[in-house]
Parts: sequence; C-alpha cells; structure tokens
Amino acid sequence: MAEQTVEELVADVFSRGCTSREALEHVTGKWSLLALSALAESPHRFGELRRRIEGVSEKMLAQGLQTLERDGWVHREVHSTIPPHVEYRLTGAGAELVPHLLGLIDFVEGRMPAVRAAQAAADQVRPPR
Amino acid sequence: MAEQTVEELVADVFSRGCTSREALEHVTGKWSLLALSALAESPHRFGELRRRIEGVSEKMLAQGLQTLERDGWVHREVHSTIPPHVEYRLTGAGAELVPHLLGLIDFVEGRMPAVRAAQAAADQVRPPR
Repeated sequence: MAEQTVEELVADVFSRGCTSREALEHVTGKWSLLALSALAESPHRFGELRRRIEGVSEKMLAQGLQTLERDGWVHREVHSTIPPHVEYRLTGAGAELVPHLLGLIDFVEGRMPAVRAAQAAADQVRPPR
Repeated sequence: MAEQTVEELVADVFSRGCTSREALEHVTGKWSLLALSALAESPHRFGELRRRIEGVSEKMLAQGLQTLERDGWVHREVHSTIPPHVEYRLTGAGAELVPHLLGLIDFVEGRMPAVRAAQAAADQVRPPR
C-alpha cells in the first residue's frame, strides 16, 4: 500500500501503472498533438480543426478532443447562436503545455533534411520492407 | 510539380504528405518516446531497455528502435565480445532531440495532480465509458 501511494505522488512514465504515462500518450497521440498545435494559433471550430489537420477522420478528431478536454488541456465552448456553434480553445494548462509540443515539432521539421539523409543511408544497407 | 517541391523544402506536419509528420510520429510513439528518454540517461543493451520500459513487448521495442535508428536518432552498436552484445545509444542528432522530449515528460509528470483533478471533474459530468 505504501508503495502505491509513493507511485501516485512521484509520477514516472516508465512505470506501467503510472497515470502520467497515459496522460503523456494523450498529448503525443498523432491527432491530438496536431490539434493542440493548431489550437496554439487560435481557437478553432470542429470543422476548422478538421480542415487544418489534413487526413484526420471526424471520429479520431472527436475522440482526441474529448480526451484532451477530460485531461484539462482543451476547453469546449458551446455558443448559443442560431445555429449553435462549438468552439475549442486551450485552457491555461494547455497554453503552458503547447510550447513543449511546438518546440519538438519545430525541431523535427528543421531536421528533416538530416532525417531523410539518414533514412536513405539506412535503406542502402537494409532495404525498407 | 512546383508545389510539391515547396512542400519538400518547407516541412509542415499539418500536411498529409509531408514526411515530417511521419518523423514526428516516430519520436512521439508510445515506446519510442520512452526508449529515447531512457537512452538520454546512458547507452542501454536491448534487455536493459526492455526492463526499464515496463510493459513493452520485445517486438514493439525492436520495431521502435529500428525506426529510430533509420531516422538517425539512435545508433546500434554490435560489440564483438564473446558472446557478442548489442548496445543502443543516442546519436548527436538524438542528443539534440531528447531535451525536447524530456521537457515535455517533466511538464506532464509535474502536472499530474491537475490532470487527475480535471479528469475527476469531467467524469462527474460525463461518466467515463
């Protein structure tokens, strides 16, 4: 029992049972990461997000947003207009989270020439399956 | 044709066809992210990595490491000892990448009390399925 309590207090993504591993997966998931990055620019309606994130399905985007909302990174606001419209925006916590994601994305985008060169070199030794 | 060339030059993870999106997924994948974080501490043998990352299967870890090696973040070295042993370590590029991942992990780990509180509040309104 004592150990469980310690595990709850000290988050460790390497531990199978730690809730932080799941929370990390939620924000680094393929579509969630892109949704958070889009929301870093401005609030978006659902359809706007779907167009911004090329290739995402309605179902995957909705699931991702619901998880991000549950974890407290994203706020979903229903405007009582006619017709009503739903807008997503970052919470305060989400606004503190996204710089970490944007820094990672910028880094990887900037490194693509080196990544492609590494891939080409690797594929010469071991052809891709 | 001209647009394709521009897309290759300006990496944009929001674009369906951009190779940077795939590269980003490679480093943020559940097991790859944890493997990179473990390698940030020190080089590891395969079995050491597997024990460090609780719950990972041999197959998933091997696939993740192979992808990270192909993208140039991880170096796989076979030591010609008897018996031979294989060690994984970060490349120079990998060493530049991991601070971005560690920053994100630290942030999420530090925010777990708030995340759990948000989850509990959300589940009162909409019980989890």
